[in-house]
Amino acid sequence: MSKKIFLNENDMPRQWYNIVADMPNKPLPPLHPGTKQPVGPEDLAPLFPMELIKQEVSTEQYIDIPDEVLDIYKIWRPSPLFRATGFEKLLDAPVKIYYKYEGGSPSGSHKPNTAVAQAYYSKQEGVKKITTETGAGQWGTALSFACKQFGIDCDVYMVRISHDQKPYRKIMMNMFGANVYASPSNRTQAGRNILAKDPHATGSLGIAISEAIEMAAQDANTKYALGSVLNHVLLHQTIIGQEAEKQMAMAGDYPDIVIAPLGGGSNFAGLAFPFLKHKINGTRNVRAIAVEPASCPKLTKGKFMYDFGDTAGYTPLLPMYTLGHNFSPAAIHAGGLRYHGASVLCSQLLKDNLIEAQALQQLECFEAGVLFAKAEGIIPAPEATHAIAQVIREAKKAKEEGVQKTILFNLCGHGFVDMQAYADYFEGKLTNHEFTDDELSSALPEVEALQPNK
Amino acid sequence: MSKKIFLNENDMPRQWYNIVADMPNKPLPPLHPGTKQPVGPEDLAPLFPMELIKQEVSTEQYIDIPDEVLDIYKIWRPSPLFRATGFEKLLDAPVKIYYKYEGGSPSGSHKPNTAVAQAYYSKQEGVKKITTETGAGQWGTALSFACKQFGIDCDVYMVRISHDQKPYRKIMMNMFGANVYASPSNRTQAGRNILAKDPHATGSLGIAISEAIEMAAQDANTKYALGSVLNHVLLHQTIIGQEAEKQMAMAGDYPDIVIAPLGGGSNFAGLAFPFLKHKINGTRNVRAIAVEPASCPKLTKGKFMYDFGDTAGYTPLLPMYTLGHNFSPAAIHAGGLRYHGASVLCSQLLKDNLIEAQALQQLECFEAGVLFAKAEGIIPAPEATHAIAQVIREAKKAKEEGVQKTILFNLCGHGFVDMQAYADYFEGKLTNHEFTDDELSSALPEVEALQPNK
Repeated sequence: MSKKIFLNENDMPRQWYNIVADMPNKPLPPLHPGTKQPVGPEDLAPLFPMELIKQEVSTEQYIDIPDEVLDIYKIWRPSPLFRATGFEKLLDAPVKIYYKYEGGSPSGSHKPNTAVAQAYYSKQEGVKKITTETGAGQWGTALSFACKQFGIDCDVYMVRISHDQKPYRKIMMNMFGANVYASPSNRTQAGRNILAKDPHATGSLGIAISEAIEMAAQDANTKYALGSVLNHVLLHQTIIGQEAEKQMAMAGDYPDIVIAPLGGGSNFAGLAFPFLKHKINGTRNVRAIAVEPASCPKLTKGKFMYDFGDTAGYTPLLPMYTLGHNFSPAAIHAGGLRYHGASVLCSQLLKDNLIEAQALQQLECFEAGVLFAKAEGIIPAPEATHAIAQVIREAKKAKEEGVQKTILFNLCGHGFVDMQAYADYFEGKLTNHEFTDDELSSALPEVEALQPNK
Repeated sequence: MSKKIFLNENDMPRQWYNIVADMPNKPLPPLHPGTKQPVGPEDLAPLFPMELIKQEVSTEQYIDIPDEVLDIYKIWRPSPLFRATGFEKLLDAPVKIYYKYEGGSPSGSHKPNTAVAQAYYSKQEGVKKITTETGAGQWGTALSFACKQFGIDCDVYMVRISHDQKPYRKIMMNMFGANVYASPSNRTQAGRNILAKDPHATGSLGIAISEAIEMAAQDANTKYALGSVLNHVLLHQTIIGQEAEKQMAMAGDYPDIVIAPLGGGSNFAGLAFPFLKHKINGTRNVRAIAVEPASCPKLTKGKFMYDFGDTAGYTPLLPMYTLGHNFSPAAIHAGGLRYHGASVLCSQLLKDNLIEAQALQQLECFEAGVLFAKAEGIIPAPEATHAIAQVIREAKKAKEEGVQKTILFNLCGHGFVDMQAYADYFEGKLTNHEFTDDELSSALPEVEALQPNK
């Protein structure tokens, strides 16, 4: 059983929190891959609405959320914060556990928090179509929903292996009115180049990003949207942590530890950044732990370097922890965490020791997810189970050390559309993946060559 | 886009509404199939906790909801009421449309409203295990969740064709700690009898009910739970309509028409009964429309007779609109609506012209569901699409007649676990089903023989 801490609609935060304002070391600028000089707004203008470019480089501490965005947020926001009393009882450790539940959104995850904002600013600037990529489909579903709300067309490039093997998310996107293309496709040069080498290529997030960017760059009325990684995307997610702060205060509590999964970084940033503000300012000593899959350990095994966000090299060079833009992570069911790099902001914070990172194996995560479902009545998305597994680790540690801890984590989405993953888990079809030195060295050398001092 | 009308947790109703108190013609009593005499509490005691038996025969207008049940309700209740502004715009008719959304519950439908209550009363009376049946799995999931919350074992007999073809719901039940058995099974005499005739029998809800009852009857510490049909089940669902009444008042509105799907009747009763109170009392003239699938049209083509609730004939005889307890409905994707009879209370109300019934084909319903998802951003369960299709019919009628109408319907569950149904719909694999006279006469003659005057 769990206890809900409910926030009134009128108490919903009306600004996003921009951690850049408070960071002791500001993020390094993105660089043009040709000149190795910082990119300016004009470089990004073909891809993004100007208002989002402004947010991308803003140093303001808070940015107003437009009323039209708040109106759509209110369909599912404020999201509930739960005290996980059932899970606490099960773990029998000296911990209080809270979780913010983002699964009540139209697409079932935290992704609409930024999708709605991006669609809104696009609409304001006359955009007719938005292109994007999606892996397992969470982000594509969210953007499809958001675009439909504003009457914008949406083209989604979906990693082919997911497109073929996980048709349900594709159908959901279609139901929200989007066009979904298996990537690599023949619609783009990036896709054709891949298919020329391997007609049966199963695709990757990096390739799908390249395709979506290429299509957006060709048409003045088409823009591109990314579901994570970029500063403005992380910004939009901070509504999660700000709500959670208010709800924790209502519960008379404050977290010692904040935990969230990290794929590109927006899930983690959304919950953690508002709490990190107080850590940076020295008023609270919260630990913020980003949990990544052991099969794609950019934070714990990657290098802090300039790298592309996509495979074809269409994006600016971003300073981030990366395994290399050509890195192919092993197939795990937490599709949302299979990205080669971490957002610039999360990477800088890790470099500055303001956050921690932990890589976990998928069997430990699924086991945690099953325990949690029994105790709390919510089936978590595979991505979310990474946070839960880390909560269990911290609870065990607290018990061993005999200290009282208050833990808050982001239950970023439900697993209703991921039941095949649990089926595979129960049938023993899932395995762990030991990340090897060969994997580490597979894609990093070509990134070395991209560095500005080369 | 839609607009949420939010009810504060403190304003949640604290009583269930019992329509029996207000019905002009009280429901006929259930009869013992042997004696044809009304059954008493002692006949039901092997199957149900005494408190639920009391509720089953209660004529009190309101019954207090226990605090422990309210505490669990609060995990997802009060559920939101939405003004369907996006759908209204799409339909372009003189209608205001509201919907109560029950998909935010742990199992994704309205079913936990009664599952939690039934598990609570069972726990109070020392029950160790609850048996039940489930078709597509919605009810079994809800009861699994509820039993886990109270530490009660749960055995679910799942119609074999769903068990084999729709494994995801089975896995969800397992995740909530329940044991799931494909029905017919070799565990019961009822199951063995069926398998002896046909070893490949795919099962039915009626057979699964027989199996669950048989197992409960054999063990004093085991009780049986039903997910619809019975008076106390309908009672527990009235929290839906009572919340909706408050929310409609907050919106300054009142429905002219209330619409919900009808399988056994609890979905429809949950929304409609609190509004029907005012119709019966003459203070409001609301139309309440129960929507059933054209392939299982007990309300519009069935007969009002005494019939069994299950296939083996273990239940008392219930006075209801029925197609016969041996009727096999055609395979449609709205599994929750494939039941041969309608609850005693709904049947009596229909007989007394206090409610209306409408049978709809599944293609019309799926089309409505897809339109709704685009407009409102929520993918409805196949059951729920029946209500949506009727809303569209009423909107068209209002437009033709040039009258203003306010419509409220029950969006009883989300469709995240039903994407295969939408996949089949998009691929043109679904068909309508014309109910024939042969079907009508297939199972009714043996019901004739059960009538008390025979």
